[in-house]
Amino acid sequence: MIRIGLFGAGGRMGKAIIGAAHGIADIVDESPDAFIDFSAPAALKSNLDAAVAAGKPIVIGTTGLTLDHHAALDEAARAVPVLQAANMSLGVNILAHIVRETAARLGPDWDIEILEMHHRHKADAPSGTGLLLGRAAAAGRGVDLDAVSDKARDGITGPREEGHIGFAVMRGGSVAGDHQVVFAGEGERIELGHRAESRAIFAQGALKAAQWIVGKPAGRYTMDDVLGLS
Amino acid sequence: MIRIGLFGAGGRMGKAIIGAAHGIADIVDESPDAFIDFSAPAALKSNLDAAVAAGKPIVIGTTGLTLDHHAALDEAARAVPVLQAANMSLGVNILAHIVRETAARLGPDWDIEILEMHHRHKADAPSGTGLLLGRAAAAGRGVDLDAVSDKARDGITGPREEGHIGFAVMRGGSVAGDHQVVFAGEGERIELGHRAESRAIFAQGALKAAQWIVGKPAGRYTMDDVLGLS
Amino acid sequence: MIRIGLFGAGGRMGKAIIGAAHGIADIVDESPDAFIDFSAPAALKSNLDAAVAAGKPIVIGTTGLTLDHHAALDEAARAVPVLQAANMSLGVNILAHIVRETAARLGPDWDIEILEMHHRHKADAPSGTGLLLGRAAAAGRGVDLDAVSDKARDGITGPREEGHIGFAVMRGGSVAGDHQVVFAGEGERIELGHRAESRAIFAQGALKAAQWIVGKPAGRYTMDDVLGLS
Amino acid sequence: MIRIGLFGAGGRMGKAIIGAAHGIADIVDESPDAFIDFSAPAALKSNLDAAVAAGKPIVIGTTGLTLDHHAALDEAARAVPVLQAANMSLGVNILAHIVRETAARLGPDWDIEILEMHHRHKADAPSGTGLLLGRAAAAGRGVDLDAVSDKARDGITGPREEGHIGFAVMRGGSVAGDHQVVFAGEGERIELGHRAESRAIFAQGALKAAQWIVGKPAGRYTMDDVLGLS
Repeated sequence: MIRIGLFGAGGRMGKAIIGAAHGIADIVDESPDAFIDFSAPAALKSNLDAAVAAGKPIVIGTTGLTLDHHAALDEAARAVPVLQAANMSLGVNILAHIVRETAARLGPDWDIEILEMHHRHKADAPSGTGLLLGRAAAAGRGVDLDAVSDKARDGITGPREEGHIGFAVMRGGSVAGDHQVVFAGEGERIELGHRAESRAIFAQGALKAAQWIVGKPAGRYTMDDVLGLS
Repeated sequence: MIRIGLFGAGGRMGKAIIGAAHGIADIVDESPDAFIDFSAPAALKSNLDAAVAAGKPIVIGTTGLTLDHHAALDEAARAVPVLQAANMSLGVNILAHIVRETAARLGPDWDIEILEMHHRHKADAPSGTGLLLGRAAAAGRGVDLDAVSDKARDGITGPREEGHIGFAVMRGGSVAGDHQVVFAGEGERIELGHRAESRAIFAQGALKAAQWIVGKPAGRYTMDDVLGLS
Repeated sequence: MIRIGLFGAGGRMGKAIIGAAHGIADIVDESPDAFIDFSAPAALKSNLDAAVAAGKPIVIGTTGLTLDHHAALDEAARAVPVLQAANMSLGVNILAHIVRETAARLGPDWDIEILEMHHRHKADAPSGTGLLLGRAAAAGRGVDLDAVSDKARDGITGPREEGHIGFAVMRGGSVAGDHQVVFAGEGERIELGHRAESRAIFAQGALKAAQWIVGKPAGRYTMDDVLGLS
Repeated sequence: MIRIGLFGAGGRMGKAIIGAAHGIADIVDESPDAFIDFSAPAALKSNLDAAVAAGKPIVIGTTGLTLDHHAALDEAARAVPVLQAANMSLGVNILAHIVRETAARLGPDWDIEILEMHHRHKADAPSGTGLLLGRAAAAGRGVDLDAVSDKARDGITGPREEGHIGFAVMRGGSVAGDHQVVFAGEGERIELGHRAESRAIFAQGALKAAQWIVGKPAGRYTMDDVLGLS
């Protein structure tokens, strides 16, 4: 049993981690072995400071991060082990691998689209996992996602530009998280998707990451490291 | 065999109508029994003028129309029979009926989302059919679609507003037209969708509408009238 | 708060009912206001006997029932109120209505197929809900489901017979229950589906049915009666 | 332009090949450069004999083949180049690769299910492509598909057996061919699928295979060889 310091304990994911911790981890207020942060982008820097001050590793699942936040992650990673991931399930991380590989095999005459659906409370769009999958597709093609993203189509858009990666966002109900990457060619489509039935799989992934990261040297880590996927 | 005057004969739908006309209709340059228009919004008024001048009915499948275009349709319908429909397949028109009914049965705690995917050449978003389904859902709830539409989610959107109807748009490959209406409640989802395998079903619907409208009095008609769905 | 006598309390659905009962119902050993039965077909008759002996209504969610079991339900319903339903969610019961209506509107040139997926522990196939949807489709067409069912296609089946209703069954993981009814025509498909995210919606439906049935006269009831859908 | 001798020219796939051949191949009665066979299992041996007698390569897309047929393919492949494939589209052959890889990465606690839908005329079940995907999944796990196949679930099946690969079959309308491989774990699912919009993609793949195989040495080849996927 490891001791976890949890930021964002009152949120949906925080509660899921408390629910999944039984027999795996103790959620503690003082001197944890590792921190887990599922709070909000605005709290990231102070949470990193706390981990650095304690000299303990930190696992971050917050989405909606900017370049600025990533600079802060790099800075903290000089002092302690830092793992940030938009999605901590085994399924999504395997999906990202095969999306990258499929994008690498298919030419630019196959259009790539990313669809995601989440519950009505989610505040950012596209989801962090949607962007993670977009980056995997862009990496497979050897391009930068920011240069080819098509978001928020509305009105007279004109024809689709070759090489772009589109995003479509659905919000509603209590959906834990559905994602699909569509490769649309002339006369055929490949559809690669993931469905999360509940947040428990994300909570279990975060706890697994916390167990794994204790004792590692300072630096940035990914779920691929935890899951042995690289 | 009826004689059809076809506007937009060189476009994707125009070619599909020529391909489907064999044994049903002759595409003619002069003195048709009815007109079919699958050209572009900018050409709508001159095409309506041609129908009125000839005193013949006109079937219009062009999408991306504005309030101004609809006023022109009303004006022409005082002189000749006018049928405008975003989608002329039997399946989509039945789907619109059950979407309306389902929206009427479910309370506002069920969120409504509309997803559509079309080929890479489509220039307007959401699709005319997507909007048709959105209007059916809004009608079921007794609200005006324009007042509750959520299009183009991107960035920090905040939580979904109760009662809104969201749209998600995918573009790629050669997809003839896929639509899905999702009703997302607490713990469950109803998904009502339609897939078109090719444009032939739209072309057949347009020809069926043209056959039906010949001999009708001036006025505006819908595919429900043609298909006996009202 | 009503008092519920629960048969099958140790099963997956029994546990879900105990989990959902908080603030709605007390699960009691003696003198309940109503019984809920999610045990197994073999236990049905003794459970009905207990309800009749107590003179209390019974709500039954067990699937895999035979004609014999239904005769026992009819018999018990002469003495007490009896509600048996393969699925107690609002979504599935609305879906059944629109499946029936769609089947009634479409001719026999539209083939009807029913797909369902459930968790790896489910012991009967097709699911009770899949059969419920099949009966709704058959009723829409005015035919008897048993006379037109195509189950378990394997090997050289030959072409599909017109008017038949096919079933496809998937089993795996922890899927609470996904269902889809496909109407496949020439060149187009209508797809009407439901996804349950967890068993909580079935448990809540069973409790709602138990609340509703207390005080009703003896007889057989359906979820349509509870949900006001008829 | 190569000259093709076509077996099964009157069938659905034969017509699709004739339609796709324009500018790529001449369909000829005498002295072809290669044969393409989309007829029926019963005709396979006589078609192979014709290819061997002519000393020309043969590309076979017929599905529903037995071990006996495969022995005949091996026999013919000693004399001429022989390529047999259940599906000749780029998309399905890429899908098979990622299915194999995903099955290899996931443990036996992830259940594998294969769903396919085809038009109402298809006579064999599961589809040849469905079996091809099943073999890819089995290969990823290092097992023999025949030893773990679950087909045609109906009645009281009992719980799913660990390590089995299930098949679900849908038939209806004019569906050219949809396939999906589902990996169902505890709380999450990975869904990997392919949709064919029309038979044109299979016809183009067969013609590409015929172009590629001319001039190759005798032996058995696969679409991976043609598409450079191995």
